[in-house]
Parts: sequence; structure tokens; C-alpha cells
Amino acid sequence: MASAPFFAVVAGAGPGTGRAVALKFAKTYAVVVLARSPESYNDTVAEIKKAGGHALGISTDVADAASVNSAFETIKKELPGSKLAAAIFNVSGGFAKKPFLELKPEELDDSLDVAVRGFARFAQSSLPLLLESVPDSPHPPSLLLTGATASVKGSAHFGSFAAGKFALRALGQSLAREFGPQGVHVAHIIVDGIIDIPRTKHLNPPSGAEDAKLKPEAIAESYWHLHTQHRSAFTQEIDIRPYVEKW
Amino acid sequence: MASAPFFAVVAGAGPGTGRAVALKFAKTYAVVVLARSPESYNDTVAEIKKAGGHALGISTDVADAASVNSAFETIKKELPGSKLAAAIFNVSGGFAKKPFLELKPEELDDSLDVAVRGFARFAQSSLPLLLESVPDSPHPPSLLLTGATASVKGSAHFGSFAAGKFALRALGQSLAREFGPQGVHVAHIIVDGIIDIPRTKHLNPPSGAEDAKLKPEAIAESYWHLHTQHRSAFTQEIDIRPYVEKW
Amino acid sequence: MASAPFFAVVAGAGPGTGRAVALKFAKTYAVVVLARSPESYNDTVAEIKKAGGHALGISTDVADAASVNSAFETIKKELPGSKLAAAIFNVSGGFAKKPFLELKPEELDDSLDVAVRGFARFAQSSLPLLLESVPDSPHPPSLLLTGATASVKGSAHFGSFAAGKFALRALGQSLAREFGPQGVHVAHIIVDGIIDIPRTKHLNPPSGAEDAKLKPEAIAESYWHLHTQHRSAFTQEIDIRPYVEKW
Amino acid sequence: MASAPFFAVVAGAGPGTGRAVALKFAKTYAVVVLARSPESYNDTVAEIKKAGGHALGISTDVADAASVNSAFETIKKELPGSKLAAAIFNVSGGFAKKPFLELKPEELDDSLDVAVRGFARFAQSSLPLLLESVPDSPHPPSLLLTGATASVKGSAHFGSFAAGKFALRALGQSLAREFGPQGVHVAHIIVDGIIDIPRTKHLNPPSGAEDAKLKPEAIAESYWHLHTQHRSAFTQEIDIRPYVEKW
Repeated sequence: MASAPFFAVVAGAGPGTGRAVALKFAKTYAVVVLARSPESYNDTVAEIKKAGGHALGISTDVADAASVNSAFETIKKELPGSKLAAAIFNVSGGFAKKPFLELKPEELDDSLDVAVRGFARFAQSSLPLLLESVPDSPHPPSLLLTGATASVKGSAHFGSFAAGKFALRALGQSLAREFGPQGVHVAHIIVDGIIDIPRTKHLNPPSGAEDAKLKPEAIAESYWHLHTQHRSAFTQEIDIRPYVEKW
Repeated sequence: MASAPFFAVVAGAGPGTGRAVALKFAKTYAVVVLARSPESYNDTVAEIKKAGGHALGISTDVADAASVNSAFETIKKELPGSKLAAAIFNVSGGFAKKPFLELKPEELDDSLDVAVRGFARFAQSSLPLLLESVPDSPHPPSLLLTGATASVKGSAHFGSFAAGKFALRALGQSLAREFGPQGVHVAHIIVDGIIDIPRTKHLNPPSGAEDAKLKPEAIAESYWHLHTQHRSAFTQEIDIRPYVEKW
Repeated sequence: MASAPFFAVVAGAGPGTGRAVALKFAKTYAVVVLARSPESYNDTVAEIKKAGGHALGISTDVADAASVNSAFETIKKELPGSKLAAAIFNVSGGFAKKPFLELKPEELDDSLDVAVRGFARFAQSSLPLLLESVPDSPHPPSLLLTGATASVKGSAHFGSFAAGKFALRALGQSLAREFGPQGVHVAHIIVDGIIDIPRTKHLNPPSGAEDAKLKPEAIAESYWHLHTQHRSAFTQEIDIRPYVEKW
Repeated sequence: MASAPFFAVVAGAGPGTGRAVALKFAKTYAVVVLARSPESYNDTVAEIKKAGGHALGISTDVADAASVNSAFETIKKELPGSKLAAAIFNVSGGFAKKPFLELKPEELDDSLDVAVRGFARFAQSSLPLLLESVPDSPHPPSLLLTGATASVKGSAHFGSFAAGKFALRALGQSLAREFGPQGVHVAHIIVDGIIDIPRTKHLNPPSGAEDAKLKPEAIAESYWHLHTQHRSAFTQEIDIRPYVEKW
């Protein structure tokens, strides 16, 4: 891949938020998309290239330390001299919706391995690069985390998912307080509602109204806005939901 | 004033957030600035006009029902046919910092008259106009409220200020839930820190770092972003603070 | 009334929480109950006296400064030498449930006059007495505030009620931070659900389950527990709701 | 151990909250204390027995599934016919206070293994027993969780601890919503401040005031109160802090 001065890395580049954020940031930066399988990122990479941007997809399992290390090694090799302007963590796990007494340890682990351990690995790989970019990044280097309703509310039968999301939010606050004063913008985005992607086509929000599902492109606009905020006015947390959503 | 198809109204157009928001929105809309005295808005109006924009200042006391009604009558007359795209409430009162047992009833009233009654009046005047704009406004018609640290935390000796700000946040949530589904975007912005204006020049934030005070222009960028959010991805609450701020 | 060494004062002594709290505290203290009309407190006073306790009812409108002052003058005269151990504020206003654009200024005022101004008056009359009791009160002198779901959530059509309740919570936090270090315990109780009183008999909670409405006596147990907490372990906020309540 | 009709189990029975809660509950129930080593529970067990109560200590590592299973097998054997009235989870891990970039994966794991996985195991062992006790327990069977300031705030250098504590709170909310309607009371206690135990003797709270550290016995009173709440008035979350604590 031809090198560009700055790049963004998006972990979790599925068809919704991840893809839209990658496309949005690709208008300004080279973009590296990480996902477990090429099927998840191939289209996004192709779309960015077609539009004249720089993109690189790397098969990565954030739940696996070696895989994350390898991905950042690949980035270093493939984008020599390029600096990290934004790291977006958009991976979730532990969706098992079930009565607590039926929850298997590995289902709880699935949430923790991704949302907590996986994020910690991703952040430990990204933050040194973001710190390096502080002096000359066009916008304050940013670490953006995707949250959910379950980041602030533990619902019945959603314990494992909520445990991971609450913990991710905790890490986000902790990192914001540690790295904010060093010039890195850490922000947490609570995406509250159904995202409008092919997989959710059959899901009709209760309201039945138009635009009742979150458009990924609309979400991506807010991620970009957070990235471009001046360091004198950083947002740490933002919620995003459809106008008709109950909350 | 020459009419423009859409306008924004900013209540509380002092030298910080209000002025910066007015200037930002004036790049797209005609802007009406409301403040108690012309000294508060004259410069802003002049600056907008000099840059080729449309601006109108109206002396208004939001704590006075007749004054608010009169302001909206003036708007109707001065901007015939123009429609309201955004209403920003940026007025505060009740700053009396003192031991609770020394707090005078009128000092508590000062907070409630502005932040609660004043906002209610402003919202009751604005919302019908915002609802009318839903079908053709370039962005979802927006009602944006300026909050503060005291919106979510009641500190010692700040009871009257916090009472008003908590109540304002309550009204914002209530209106977001009522008018969001009708297409009007109601958002609450928690501005946490010292704003960088001439009046705060002598205040040195504890960190002593550069950019340790909120730049009004940076705040205004987030107000504009909130206004431009697609209705499938509305934010209800956002915090903004300097990168070095403790919180 | 025969004097007793310590007394409690309960503002808002209707048939639910107020009455139950008065009866509970009357097992240890003389109790003064304040309500707008004798019909609201007569039964409670009679019941306390019948059980061998000391009780005094005073017709008081917390929305009226003169009425509150007069009540505390009466207390001073009727309970000479008695000291204040606990002040409970259990009054609400502004229940008008209606579309915001139909809300009348006086309906919003009803909420502010009671929950904010009324509470401030009650607190300014009580706190000096509570401070005097710090050295010898059997439990840390306490100022207990009754909140509701609307203290932390502004729902559609409930703006005026939520504005008052949010503001009351703000004042509670502010006073806890100012008077806690002086030995007075200020706590806020979020009562979330329907209270089981004659007036709500026809209301069937969605669950239809037994005990699905809050028993006033059960609420009163938690008020008493808060009052008896050691100063090394004060609670500032507590929620109370039926086991079947959705939240 | 002579069997008693009801028992409580306390996981994490160190010298502070755990010991005090065990002593308090032992006035009514047989008490089983779980800790990694006998040194942690021997004194507590002896003290309960000396006062005429029933106590059993079992060396248990909540981070180890086999150890937790074995403990509950032992309980079943040692307390035949006895039913579980209260399960208290008072174990924490992941205290490593350090810059995030120096945090080792195993330090993060330490927090998750105890606060999340360990709690899940403990809860999956306890809840079936608590559900069985619903019909005849003297008070609603209770699952009580010890939280901390870090349960609601992620501070710099405290990421791993906060991740575990946030996740524990998530599980607590989720279980409260699932098991509350079945009659089991799940409550989360935010202990905010320094606990007054031998190990903290050298720590002087900033205020320097008397009673500026949480007395374990005072904490235990609130745990007991939560356990005795009527099911029509359950508390889900409570904070506890010294009267002079800043927050």
C-alpha cells in the first residue's frame, strides 16, 4: 500500500458502524481495517480504493494477543513512516442472551476476551502510536470506543454482554483521564438502538417509523466530529439514538 | 433585515459560547441574538453583518414573559417568511456562591427564573416554530441547551445554580422524549470547565497548560455538529471539557 | 404537648410515606407533622398519641414563606427545650401531566414553589436546629428528602414534575456536601413505583403480582435506617422499588 | 457444625467489611465464610462461635471454578437441611495501580477473574439456593455485592480495578432485573472511602477528622438493612461514605 502521512485503524469492520467509520475516515487518512475474516473487510477495502483512498485489511482476532501484535507489525511494515491519527475500537462479544443460570463460563469469557482483554491489547498497541502523533496530527489523535445501551444498563438475560460493555466504559474513562492531559482524545460512544444494516432488515423497530434504525453513515459523522474536536473542548461520552427510540 | 429562508435564535449571546455559536450558525442561517442589553449582542451582530451574514439583536430578558413574547413578535415581523432551524438556550442565572444558610430567596429565584421559567418560555415560543420547519429544514430543527458541571453535580455552596441547571436538564430530557419523535432534535451540552473569554483571563486553570480553557469556537463546532446530526442518530447529551480538566 | 428531648419534623404528612415515616419516628421521638390541611395529619397525630407517643400537627403550606416561619415558631413554643433529630421533606408539586406546549406557567411554578423554594425554606429553618443537635442527638441529625423516578429521568409530558424533582436532588447533593462534614446527614430517597395507599387502590401495577406497590411502612424502615447510620458510613442516595417493578 | 435452619455465605471475609458482615449476620443465621486462606477467616469463625453463633470457614479461591464448587459441596454436607438466606460477595481483585501502558495482561485478568468470573460462579452457585428459600426465608433471600468508588468512576491508573468493578455492577443490575421478580433481592453497595482496619491505620484521610474512615460495623448495618427490606421496597443500589469524604 502506498504510504500516506497519517492513518486510522478500525477494529471491528463489519457492515455497520465499522465500515461506515472506515469510509468516513478514509476521506482524510489511510485506513487499516481489522476483522476476524477477510469477508468482513474485503468490500470496505475495495470501496475505499475505488474512491481513490488508501486501505489495508488485516485478519485479526482481538481476543488473541499474538494476532493483535501481528496486525500492528504488519501495519508498521506496510505503512512505513505513516503515523496513527485515530484508533477506533468497534468490536463486541458476549451477545448470548439467556437466563443467567444457563450462562456458560465460555459465554461470559467471550464478552470479556473481546471487550476487556481485546480492547486492552488494542489500546496498548495504539496508544504509543497516538502519543507519537500528538505534535503533528491534523486533529488530536483519538481513541474512540463503541458502546451500547448495555454500557450503562444491565438488563435481565444480558449480563455477559453488559459486563463487557460496562468494563469497556470503565477503561475508556480511565484512559481519558490518563491520556487526555497528554493530548490523546479518548471518547466513548453509546450507540442506543438498532443499526440499519442488511442483517437487521427484518427487525422492525416498535415505532415502525422511517429512519427508526441508526444509519451507519450518520453514526460515522459523529465519530469524525469527535476526532476533529479541538483539545480545549473534548467530549468524553456521547449517546446516539434514532429520534423515535424510547429510552 | 433582509429575510433568509431559515434562521437560528440564540438566547444568551454573551462573549463566550453564545457569541461563538451565533457566528458559527450565521454561516448558514440568519441569526437572531437575544440578550438583556445591546452591549451584549452589538459586537456579534456587527461581526456577522461584516462577514456578509444576516443578524438581528433584540434586547430580551428571558426571566420576563412579556419580554420573550415581544422578542418573538419582533422576529416574526423582521423576518417574514423565514423559518426557525435552530434555537439555542445559553442563559444562566443564580451564580450566587455562598453558604446555604445565607442564601436569599431572591438568589434562588434568580436561578429558577432564568434556567427553568425562562427556558420554558423560550421553548414554548420556539418549539411551535421548530415543528413547522420539520418538513423542509436543511437539518433537523434543533433546540440546544447549555448545561454545566452543575447540571449533574450539586456542590457545596452552589445549590441555587445547581438547582436551576439540574431542572434545565430535566426539561431537556422531557422535551427530547416528547419532541424527538416529532422530528425536533433536543440536546443538552454539559460545558465543564472555564471558558476562554476576556472576563476569565485572570483565571489560571490549575494545570497551567496551554488550551486549558474552553475555546468558544471549539464549543460552537459541537453545537453545529449536534444540529447537523441525521434524525436516525440524534445525540441527547454531550459533555465538553478541556483535555487537561480534572473530572 | 408534653416536651420530649428530641423531635422529628415531617413536611408532607399524607396517607403514604409521610404518615408511615411519622409513625416510625414517633416510636423514638416526638413528631411534628406539617401539611396544608388538618385532614391530612389529624389521623396520624391521633394514631401516634393513641400509641403513647408525642405528636403535633401544624397546618403549613411550604410554598408560603410566612407559613413555614410560623410553623417553626409554633414548634419552638410548643416543644420548649426539645431538639431536632430529623427533618423529613416529603412534599411534591407540579404533577400536571400534559403536552409541554399546553403547560401553563403556574403549573410549572407549582412544582418549583414546593420542591425547590419550599424545600429551601424548610431546610433553612431545619438546618440550624439540626446543627445544634449534632453534639448530643442519639443518631446523626438527618435531613431526608423524598425523590421519585422523575428525580433522575425527565419523561415526556412530565417536565414540570421532573424539573422540581431534579432541582430538589441538586439541593440535596449540595447540602450533603456542605453539611455532612458538619455532622448532619443529608440523604435523598428515590421512591420508584406506586405507593400502596387507598388512593392508588384502583391502580393495578402491570405485573399484577402481590406486593407490587410500595408499602409505606416498608419505605419508612429505610428512612429510619438512613437516620440511624453512623457518621462514618452515611448514604447519600438510595432507590426503593417493588421487586417486580421494571426500571 | 450443628445445623441451623438458615445460613448466610460471605465470600471475601477479610478484616474489614467481610468480617463485620459475617458477625452481624451471625446474630440471626449460621454463617459460612469463604476466603483464600484460613488466616483470613479463623478469627471471625472463632469470634462467632464464642458469641454462641454457628460459623464455618472454607478456604476458597473464587477465581477457581473447582474451588467454588467444592466450597458449595462442603456447605451442603456440613449444613444439611439448612437453607440460604443471604449470599454476600465481598471479593475484589486487580488493585494494580499503574500507568496503563505498564499494565500486564495478568494484572487485568486478576480483576476479571475475581470480580467478573468469580462473582458469576459464586452467583450461579448461590442463586438456586436463594430461589429455594423464597417461600420461607425470614427476609427476602438476598445477594449483596460490594462495590467501590471505582464501580462508577474510571480513574487514571485504576483501569483494571475499575473494569472489574464496573462489570460487577453490570452483573448486579442484570441479576436484580432477572431475579428480583422471582423474590430474590440483589443489591449493590458502593463503599466510597477508606475502611477503618489495622491495615489502613497509617492512612490519614485528608480531613484528619474523627470517624473519617468507614467503620466496618457501620457498613455491616447497611448490609443487614438491605437484607431485611420488604420485597415491596427493595433497594438496588446504595452508596456509603464517611461524613467528611469528598465526592
